[in-house]
Amino acid sequence: MDSQQVPLVARYADILQVGARNMQNYALLREVGHADKPVLLKRGLASTIEEWLMSAEHIVSQGNTQVILCERGIRTFETYTRNTLDLNAIPVVKELSHLPVIVDPRHGTGIRNKVAPMARAAIAAGADGLIIEVHHDPDHALSDGAQSLCPSSTLELVDQIRTIAGVLGRSVWEPRGWRILPA
Amino acid sequence: MDSQQVPLVARYADILQVGARNMQNYALLREVGHADKPVLLKRGLASTIEEWLMSAEHIVSQGNTQVILCERGIRTFETYTRNTLDLNAIPVVKELSHLPVIVDPRHGTGIRNKVAPMARAAIAAGADGLIIEVHHDPDHALSDGAQSLCPSSTLELVDQIRTIAGVLGRSVWEPRGWRILPA
Amino acid sequence: MDSQQVPLVARYADILQVGARNMQNYALLREVGHADKPVLLKRGLASTIEEWLMSAEHIVSQGNTQVILCERGIRTFETYTRNTLDLNAIPVVKELSHLPVIVDPRHGTGIRNKVAPMARAAIAAGADGLIIEVHHDPDHALSDGAQSLCPSSTLELVDQIRTIAGVLGRSVWEPRGWRILPA
Amino acid sequence: MDSQQVPLVARYADILQVGARNMQNYALLREVGHADKPVLLKRGLASTIEEWLMSAEHIVSQGNTQVILCERGIRTFETYTRNTLDLNAIPVVKELSHLPVIVDPRHGTGIRNKVAPMARAAIAAGADGLIIEVHHDPDHALSDGAQSLCPSSTLELVDQIRTIAGVLGRSVWEPRGWRILPA
Repeated sequence: MDSQQVPLVARYADILQVGARNMQNYALLREVGHADKPVLLKRGLASTIEEWLMSAEHIVSQGNTQVILCERGIRTFETYTRNTLDLNAIPVVKELSHLPVIVDPRHGTGIRNKVAPMARAAIAAGADGLIIEVHHDPDHALSDGAQSLCPSSTLELVDQIRTIAGVLGRSVWEPRGWRILPA
Repeated sequence: MDSQQVPLVARYADILQVGARNMQNYALLREVGHADKPVLLKRGLASTIEEWLMSAEHIVSQGNTQVILCERGIRTFETYTRNTLDLNAIPVVKELSHLPVIVDPRHGTGIRNKVAPMARAAIAAGADGLIIEVHHDPDHALSDGAQSLCPSSTLELVDQIRTIAGVLGRSVWEPRGWRILPA
Repeated sequence: MDSQQVPLVARYADILQVGARNMQNYALLREVGHADKPVLLKRGLASTIEEWLMSAEHIVSQGNTQVILCERGIRTFETYTRNTLDLNAIPVVKELSHLPVIVDPRHGTGIRNKVAPMARAAIAAGADGLIIEVHHDPDHALSDGAQSLCPSSTLELVDQIRTIAGVLGRSVWEPRGWRILPA
Repeated sequence: MDSQQVPLVARYADILQVGARNMQNYALLREVGHADKPVLLKRGLASTIEEWLMSAEHIVSQGNTQVILCERGIRTFETYTRNTLDLNAIPVVKELSHLPVIVDPRHGTGIRNKVAPMARAAIAAGADGLIIEVHHDPDHALSDGAQSLCPSSTLELVDQIRTIAGVLGRSVWEPRGWRILPA
């Protein structure tokens, strides 16, 4: 997304996402800071927690206070997983900032059967939300099938997360009429 | 611990720990591989998951099959936390190996109020155990107070972990007569 | 620099620089790919050599073949230097690509007395150029004084580089009438 | 090498090498600190410069002041080269310590045609020495052929290094009668 496209996207989308590779694209940060839609700010692949919060500050300073932070994995020497999901960042951000922080366990690992364990871990660490991809037939998905869950795994995961959130005195928000139909 | 000291230590200790800085000290690995006590093998600060499993293999190949893997944080560019606890490693190790894997959230962050969130996250990710330090008065502990929990926080954490373990169909093993006396 | 500003900047500047934080800002890469000015493409702080070359490819694919690669330091666990200048990248890029590659030893270390050693090392490794900042009184410079050289150090460095370049059968290009006046 | 073997090795070898994986094996450091032979202390794969110097201090504190530091590459996210040779460390060590520091460009890259560029760069950065492997027929070497130079490349490299060292007011020490016979 280019800074010029922000007004157009903001007219139709419910939320504006600033991708990891644009976390320090200041022209874009300024522009989404003027939009009246929530902004999902992904952490850069090699950004420190401080830089991430500074980028959020950049948006907020333009007037848009609806910023959601999203941890999606950092770059380390490990080659087995695509990235290393940094869950330490969750309690650290919770201490340093009032902004909500969610976790995207898909890119963090890039491996389907690692999505559920890391999603559970994220909630247990105090994350305010998750990004999960669901597909009725992940093995034949046209895109990102390798990191998508099927409906029945998703339902099982949501059940587990409901309990874990309860441990922290929290609940899972479920939109009215929300359903995943088991395949 | 030096390889020469292994027989002496094994006579009195219940478990032999190979520290992160010695994960590839092959003389030591060989020696604990001949001991008849369980070995706790910490992951090196910059070791890949594969290297960690290879070090375990080194021990097992000498005859000692009682090896417990322990994730304790890897080195990244992040400076806010002392290390970055790599919880991705838990489901990966679970897939690649039959060995139990536990998590040490103390060194991973080095910050007391980050220990409980990361301990919960570790269990949610599938870890088989945790290393937690408890002190009746952590602020005045002679050593490692900054990463120790007080008794009441520990009791609360154990309760939370009992529920999270249940989500995964597991339970918390409690030694007979085990108690933490609240301060 | 925003993609919208490229035509304006290209009218007046001799060269367009894509900064490290924008190395994967694809809207910007596309736009400078349409400009008729050379592009200096800095390597991202945590970009692999392959990603860096892919970003160059992005520019070249739009028609602008005048791309200069610039290594400026990557992010590692080391905290003594601001970044770690990756000179391994020079011979690797020379093998994989025909594009010229230069080195910016200022940001790589962020320390003045490390600039000259790393500048010499860069040329010895085969770099095609350097970015050096000179100030007649670095200690009182309004900006970036900490990484600027004074005129006499610069003259000494250029002399050293002339000899090192000669070792590789190369020479230092000196614009007609070029002079650094010793303070 | 185990700490027990130090006296035996010291009786026959001219120099004791502490490998990268043992840089923080304190039992070994203490033992070589009592030997009367020079010690080559390799930098750990993920050791900071400060930790490296602390390990050297460990040896020196036992009485053995003949310590040579050796940079051999650190672990980063880059996968094209086996490790990333950190030449920034050379001027940093030169400032912080009086100990000689040499560079091992073999493991830093693990690729033969990268050895000569990185060897030249190391000397240009101020290194006091190099570790180079020479084989009369590297393609058929039983071990480490991929990172060995043939005699004629070595002679060419030594010539280049002689000139680069001269730029820094230094010379190449050549043992009396030393020769590499071109193949």
